[in-house]
Amino acid sequence: MAAPTTSHKLGAEALGTFWLVLGGVGTAVLAGNEGGVGTLGIALAFGLTVLTAAYAFGPISGGHFNPAVTVGLATAKRFDWKDAPGYFAAQLAGATIAGAVLFVIAHGADGFDATASGFGANGYGDHSPGGYSLLAVIITEIVLTAFFLYVIFGATAKRAAVGFSGLAIGLALTLIHLISIPVDGTSVNPARSLGVAWFAGGDHLAQVWVFILAPVIGAAIAGVTHAMIVGEDTD
Amino acid sequence: MAAPTTSHKLGAEALGTFWLVLGGVGTAVLAGNEGGVGTLGIALAFGLTVLTAAYAFGPISGGHFNPAVTVGLATAKRFDWKDAPGYFAAQLAGATIAGAVLFVIAHGADGFDATASGFGANGYGDHSPGGYSLLAVIITEIVLTAFFLYVIFGATAKRAAVGFSGLAIGLALTLIHLISIPVDGTSVNPARSLGVAWFAGGDHLAQVWVFILAPVIGAAIAGVTHAMIVGEDTD
Amino acid sequence: MAAPTTSHKLGAEALGTFWLVLGGVGTAVLAGNEGGVGTLGIALAFGLTVLTAAYAFGPISGGHFNPAVTVGLATAKRFDWKDAPGYFAAQLAGATIAGAVLFVIAHGADGFDATASGFGANGYGDHSPGGYSLLAVIITEIVLTAFFLYVIFGATAKRAAVGFSGLAIGLALTLIHLISIPVDGTSVNPARSLGVAWFAGGDHLAQVWVFILAPVIGAAIAGVTHAMIVGEDTD
Amino acid sequence: MAAPTTSHKLGAEALGTFWLVLGGVGTAVLAGNEGGVGTLGIALAFGLTVLTAAYAFGPISGGHFNPAVTVGLATAKRFDWKDAPGYFAAQLAGATIAGAVLFVIAHGADGFDATASGFGANGYGDHSPGGYSLLAVIITEIVLTAFFLYVIFGATAKRAAVGFSGLAIGLALTLIHLISIPVDGTSVNPARSLGVAWFAGGDHLAQVWVFILAPVIGAAIAGVTHAMIVGEDTD
Repeated sequence: MAAPTTSHKLGAEALGTFWLVLGGVGTAVLAGNEGGVGTLGIALAFGLTVLTAAYAFGPISGGHFNPAVTVGLATAKRFDWKDAPGYFAAQLAGATIAGAVLFVIAHGADGFDATASGFGANGYGDHSPGGYSLLAVIITEIVLTAFFLYVIFGATAKRAAVGFSGLAIGLALTLIHLISIPVDGTSVNPARSLGVAWFAGGDHLAQVWVFILAPVIGAAIAGVTHAMIVGEDTD
Repeated sequence: MAAPTTSHKLGAEALGTFWLVLGGVGTAVLAGNEGGVGTLGIALAFGLTVLTAAYAFGPISGGHFNPAVTVGLATAKRFDWKDAPGYFAAQLAGATIAGAVLFVIAHGADGFDATASGFGANGYGDHSPGGYSLLAVIITEIVLTAFFLYVIFGATAKRAAVGFSGLAIGLALTLIHLISIPVDGTSVNPARSLGVAWFAGGDHLAQVWVFILAPVIGAAIAGVTHAMIVGEDTD
Repeated sequence: MAAPTTSHKLGAEALGTFWLVLGGVGTAVLAGNEGGVGTLGIALAFGLTVLTAAYAFGPISGGHFNPAVTVGLATAKRFDWKDAPGYFAAQLAGATIAGAVLFVIAHGADGFDATASGFGANGYGDHSPGGYSLLAVIITEIVLTAFFLYVIFGATAKRAAVGFSGLAIGLALTLIHLISIPVDGTSVNPARSLGVAWFAGGDHLAQVWVFILAPVIGAAIAGVTHAMIVGEDTD
Repeated sequence: MAAPTTSHKLGAEALGTFWLVLGGVGTAVLAGNEGGVGTLGIALAFGLTVLTAAYAFGPISGGHFNPAVTVGLATAKRFDWKDAPGYFAAQLAGATIAGAVLFVIAHGADGFDATASGFGANGYGDHSPGGYSLLAVIITEIVLTAFFLYVIFGATAKRAAVGFSGLAIGLALTLIHLISIPVDGTSVNPARSLGVAWFAGGDHLAQVWVFILAPVIGAAIAGVTHAMIVGEDTD
């Protein structure tokens, strides 16, 4: 197989992260209400964005679509740190453009207000769906991001069954949303959080630092601990 | 493997598109109400029609079941334009016969009225479930159809994992419905829209042009841009 | 691989059909109410019984778990008619024992009444969840069983992707339930219908003939027409 | 492939069982209420913990994550009894730590009370969601655990399709929860039950013996009967 160029890899990361935000947050914003698909549908949507993008774009860029995933893979020495800034930029660009497209579509119905509705932004305390504290949110994001990376490391290992990683990783993201949407709307992905926080504004933007730091910390912990706990990835 | 004949390919496209409309719109019409399976169930049903038909009929015809998919594949030079008219005819025939069978079944319960209920037709403005404007509907259909084609291009590429394309493409259609049923009932497929608009009639038929044009435009954009963004499909 | 014996094949069919009825009807009876998993959960459960049983028992018996599937495969000359009576007996035994186990469990909660609740039996007219006529029910069962067989023929064909047939066939059964639970509770399987009708009794037992005849007719139609429409199964 | 060390196997079992309890019970505790993901979402979450952990950790430890599975596999002579105590300890440790983490997160919202809410513990009689008797609960746990093991034996047999076992086994656990959450909250896994009973305390802890004994009995029955019914596992 001809190796993809850097430009094509960044294109794949941008498209995949666009899809993640448009599909996941889009379902939350457009279809998450009563009469819509509910919290279960939002959780399914987030997972299906990654599942489908993994099969569509994964063979080109590795299918991160998430700066925390990039950090975790680099920490575990499965990705070169020097390529990380480009990946971060592509992910953030894709997420932000998706936020903008969603912003336009959502305003196509009367009475939409991004700040009042939250626009799918993540939050703690008064902005947590279930009123969870900052501490509970930080623990949740660190633990869930770490396990997201454990699933990624294991499902893409040399000894893993070929072809199933997109299924396992996508459905892991659905599971993570099933657990934690009531806690903080679920991030585990700084690009997803930033891509909509610009548009939600106000407190939503002021709280976004948590959803950058905690997922990155969780991913780095996973990157450092994985081989210690379950061994090196060998053929 | 003996190559399928043209007649068998068109048979496969007709059966698959029949299944898409009977299963997807059938769930919306027969089971979409309260006490039924709701919007989440409808989204799942549409995706499962394509997932199951991809494994059942995909090896014979390529598994388009959608004129926009045929346009996108032809634009990307993965399908021969000269075979497109036959595919369009088979898809439209399958969709329309499914609409007719569903029309008969639905009348088996008292008080059914296809026009008043909408019969699963797509719509904008007053006929959008969430009251979305024509512009929002056009943007939604173009963007979602383009990404549907991106997933199809990627999941069926030579470098993709063998066997998983039906899963990825079917679940992409579920995702697309999760996002956009409240916007316009979700088309991304002119055959699906036409197959029921005949029976819904009235405004539903008058609005169907949007659901022919926008998906075709989105698919063509994807066909033109895919290789530019993520590179040619190579082994 | 050592060929399974006839006894082991019949054991696999009995276990698989037990699982189908215990899991599918069990979810309807024990968990189908408000506060439970609803119609969507029942549809998912039926599909998952076949998906899981296909991977567990399919390599042994072929994984029919349904007399209509046996008829369809035999009609299409993919199964030997002389083995059909044994399969029918094993399927009916498994379904009936599952009905009995479920009957005992359901009586573990106060106030359970199999006849009043319907015990997951299929029905038309007054016993159709949505009040559908006998004609609508017959059309629905014939069409859906025929397409269930089309999916089975295609997904198990020599040219199909290896390993995915259990996924496609199981999810086809989920789709069929999404469409038609409101019509008649969904049969497409005479063993499933009979296995619970004994216990529901009354009108439920008097109507069960429809759910034996219509699925068998649909399966036979599929067996006769499949190769005509989409061609012979070749390597 | 370099064989995993015992330490790595126990690490994989601990992580996988942590994930099962955090994900499954976590969804029940944090997101199972109205406005959350409901019983259907809880059933999906339990299955996805095992599906994802099977692909992530299965190649290392075999992916039991459940003492009853270890017993069943050892009974069927597919796992060495001398390794069982270590597996039991790792599973119980992972489950209990998950219970502790969940306990901390849940207290991040005002008014949480583990004993009053039940904290996702299993129960019979007054502590059964649907008021099911001890006898009904015992039958349910034995039958469902036995079939969980039948699916595991079949899906991991030498003749089974490679790679699909994680999918089939994970979705079998979803199915089991769809059937029986209203009966007893669903165990089929002593580690899952113990891991939260410590924190729920009171009657919940007093009833936990049922959810240790019944799954183990069901698993042992499956281990003894499987080869009798469907034959030895051969290539």
